[in-house]
Amino acid sequence: MNTSNPPIRHSAKGQQTKAAIVDAALVLATQLGLEGLSIGALADIMRMSKSGVFAHFGSREELQISVVREFHNRFEQEVFFPALRCPRGLPRLRQLFENWVRRTSVEIDSGCIYISGAVEFDDRPGPVRDALAGSVEIWMGALRRAVSQAVDEGHLRSDVDAALLSFEIHGLILALHYEARFLNSDQALPRARRGFERLMQAHLAQAQTV
Amino acid sequence: MNTSNPPIRHSAKGQQTKAAIVDAALVLATQLGLEGLSIGALADIMRMSKSGVFAHFGSREELQISVVREFHNRFEQEVFFPALRCPRGLPRLRQLFENWVRRTSVEIDSGCIYISGAVEFDDRPGPVRDALAGSVEIWMGALRRAVSQAVDEGHLRSDVDAALLSFEIHGLILALHYEARFLNSDQALPRARRGFERLMQAHLAQAQTV
Repeated sequence: MNTSNPPIRHSAKGQQTKAAIVDAALVLATQLGLEGLSIGALADIMRMSKSGVFAHFGSREELQISVVREFHNRFEQEVFFPALRCPRGLPRLRQLFENWVRRTSVEIDSGCIYISGAVEFDDRPGPVRDALAGSVEIWMGALRRAVSQAVDEGHLRSDVDAALLSFEIHGLILALHYEARFLNSDQALPRARRGFERLMQAHLAQAQTV
Repeated sequence: MNTSNPPIRHSAKGQQTKAAIVDAALVLATQLGLEGLSIGALADIMRMSKSGVFAHFGSREELQISVVREFHNRFEQEVFFPALRCPRGLPRLRQLFENWVRRTSVEIDSGCIYISGAVEFDDRPGPVRDALAGSVEIWMGALRRAVSQAVDEGHLRSDVDAALLSFEIHGLILALHYEARFLNSDQALPRARRGFERLMQAHLAQAQTV
């Protein structure tokens, strides 16, 4: 790739180049934040001209939104889809949490745009915030459904408040990220797992000893 | 205050000016982050010269650390000290959480440097990160002690893991901040309170119905 051969946007090659730019942008965004993304820095990394990078996105905002979408896709691939192979109910919910914990553990080194992005954009309305919040909402909705399914399957008690339990689970992940990444605690990971198991045990249907 | 009367550092007047600069810097840091602080912007707000502001701190880093200390002091004043008026044990622990929740609710509009700062500095070692992490550690230590006292007083079960319970409580606060501030959820506040009460109920000593 060099500046004398500008990418053609709709060709297969153009799509490949765009995907490669988004990959590089995602690495940069997890390190520097979505607001740390610059077309110039990406052009350097990709050994392309700024206008070459710009041609694929049209604006920095569009680039940021593409990064959010890519992060969303990877999150689904790593956390959500593999859990669908587990039986509905508690086994799937446990696997969802375990996949989420594993991903968060990786992000203890690399950063997480759902967390850093929330801080960057919580007071900046606009399309990037909307893309990021929308992506998080989709995931939180999937988590709540997994909790509800565990109730429907008779694994968790029928009076479980799925939204409250999802909120508590979200809290464990946020505390894991905070205490492991910022406070360098090596106890955060076992605590998050024990916290989750305590939540499950507290809500098991009477007949269950899963 | 104008630039023709540079503040004298060690006089009472100098101390007042320094405190006023830190106040303004704290407002700026909760909005823009600690890394968003600039001597220039502060000088504008204070109607002082840049060198006038600089004379009080010597470096931007020292200014950032002063802001962390001021945030710490206010956190103690609002969250920690008022709870000491409650009896040791569960009443004090409940009041600590309630004060923390109230403070977090205010910060849903203004931002919290313990949360935004963690994202800004989790990959930036140095004195500002150390000041911030040290301040959070002091608070987490106070929280763990309040939990342990509730065990010692016979309010919570003797097998309670104070560090784990503190981690779970921290998670509720982080989820409250995230879901209320970033996702604009009006349910986050009641969920955080219900989550805390569930944690307490799950750990009450048998004889307790506090």
